Amino acid sequence: MAVYTEVSDQALQSFLDSYALGALHSCKGIAEGVENSNFLIATDAGQFILTLYEKRTNEADLPFFVGLMQHLAARGITCPQPVPNKAGVALGRVSGRPACIVTFLDGVWLRQPSAVHCGAVGEALARLHLAGADYDGARQNALSLAGWPPLAAAAGARADDVFEGLTAFIATELAYLQQNWPENLPIGIIHADLFPDNVFFLKGALSGLIDFYFACTDMLSYDLAICLNAWCFEADGSFNLTKGQHMLRAYQSVRPLSTAESEALPVLARGAALRFMLTRLVDWLNVPAGALVKPKDPMEYFKKLRFHQKVSSARDYGLEP
Amino acid sequence: MAVYTEVSDQALQSFLDSYALGALHSCKGIAEGVENSNFLIATDAGQFILTLYEKRTNEADLPFFVGLMQHLAARGITCPQPVPNKAGVALGRVSGRPACIVTFLDGVWLRQPSAVHCGAVGEALARLHLAGADYDGARQNALSLAGWPPLAAAAGARADDVFEGLTAFIATELAYLQQNWPENLPIGIIHADLFPDNVFFLKGALSGLIDFYFACTDMLSYDLAICLNAWCFEADGSFNLTKGQHMLRAYQSVRPLSTAESEALPVLARGAALRFMLTRLVDWLNVPAGALVKPKDPMEYFKKLRFHQKVSSARDYGLEP
Repeated sequence: MAVYTEVSDQALQSFLDSYALGALHSCKGIAEGVENSNFLIATDAGQFILTLYEKRTNEADLPFFVGLMQHLAARGITCPQPVPNKAGVALGRVSGRPACIVTFLDGVWLRQPSAVHCGAVGEALARLHLAGADYDGARQNALSLAGWPPLAAAAGARADDVFEGLTAFIATELAYLQQNWPENLPIGIIHADLFPDNVFFLKGALSGLIDFYFACTDMLSYDLAICLNAWCFEADGSFNLTKGQHMLRAYQSVRPLSTAESEALPVLARGAALRFMLTRLVDWLNVPAGALVKPKDPMEYFKKLRFHQKVSSARDYGLEP
Repeated sequence: MAVYTEVSDQALQSFLDSYALGALHSCKGIAEGVENSNFLIATDAGQFILTLYEKRTNEADLPFFVGLMQHLAARGITCPQPVPNKAGVALGRVSGRPACIVTFLDGVWLRQPSAVHCGAVGEALARLHLAGADYDGARQNALSLAGWPPLAAAAGARADDVFEGLTAFIATELAYLQQNWPENLPIGIIHADLFPDNVFFLKGALSGLIDFYFACTDMLSYDLAICLNAWCFEADGSFNLTKGQHMLRAYQSVRPLSTAESEALPVLARGAALRFMLTRLVDWLNVPAGALVKPKDPMEYFKKLRFHQKVSSARDYGLEP
């Protein structure tokens, strides 16, 4: 739940005055998202989301994100559309923060997605990968292999306060991934954070994708590994093979995986699990007093990582030959 | 910012199935309000607020609140309207919580209200008092004189951890108020929490009042004293006499104060300041680890109370003879 920056009446009005959206009808802070501040605003022109980018989002990356959303929408991906102001510019500032108004997407995110939903996400992810192929922006993934040792160092020995032996576990896993991380797999634009709260459904059908603020250039199959982690485990930590089958089958119906990508899936899934375990761990260890956001449990991803360590091939995720 | 109870897909859908509002288009948790969980939902029938009542709201009081909103709206007060379900019932349950769907009100709440806005609030408060006069519900104010000693006891000596000498200050003030609290002033339905975030404005004009979940039967002039506290002080703790003049003049243009009410205004303002200081103090001292709500500063109301202690008559608030 997230509204980190309060917006004064004057700041909001003067920002809106630079847009051709008419008069403001309402503005409500949204208790979703953990990185940026989001407000649902209604004006004469309809409903929009006003996002204020908080410090975790690098301002220099914003043109990449805004351009990507425009590019994807032009290729039929339903995602928020940055709204240009009267001067034709989609990025501005509110209350000292970089800010953007995007179109509002109908739909709700699912708290308990089914295997059918996992299939819909697999298909949407593959379509996203194809649609991004000719985007001319590029952004390095700061949270891939090279980004993990600094996160592990930031947690340091305090990881053992969360779970006895976690520090050593992380070091061992990092060494394994550094030895085994794949190279030469197909690269492109990945969402990199396509969790259930970033996928909207309407009457059972996938209606839109949101939150492109981790999007970057990386292995497409790594994005799929992130989704397997995010969608195909049950609350008790068990992997739901049917969900994996649906996701992988639907993904491949749009973009078939190469043999090298299929073979790399287990190590990619380990890397993806470590990435989310590490960022959650660092957040967990650094919750400021009076924080308004409840940190996510890093141990959820520890359990997922343990599962991946025992996987022998992508078949264990439901990949069909 | 408040979403305390997560609502599952199934729970939301099955609750909505009991209403004639059509299909769900979207549902967003709202980062406003500190007592209950609020969701902005859009359906075929339009926009609504779904409120889940959390433990501070006594379920037995809900019929009083729901009936009051219906009563006030029928008398021209713009406030959320409880939406009855297909069985004609406005109260139900979601995720184990009592729940209600109310109509959505356009408008934004003002972060920096002006004297003109304070006038609008004074007038709306007086209209609310008149409109409530023939409401046949009644609810004791649990947060008036008799409710303060238990709050002071709950804080206890820990009040001194917040501010040296605060425990003794509270005891002295309580004794004064117990000696001087007025009797025989006009009683009626009061809002009891008409802070800026509960008053919406649209294009400069007051467009609606929300959050009636502290409403109760008490002295009407006490409600006005709450508003003087909530609206007429500046961020630096100074009292803005112009704002007080606007509020009192506008209130009296609709409902003139009796001499006894005018004379009681300083002591009522002291009581109102103590009430908010005490509830904030107890919240402040009892913030659970991992709390999602930042407690409000009790010292804001300490400063206001100190101001009221030096007031000699209601003229100091801007009351004109």
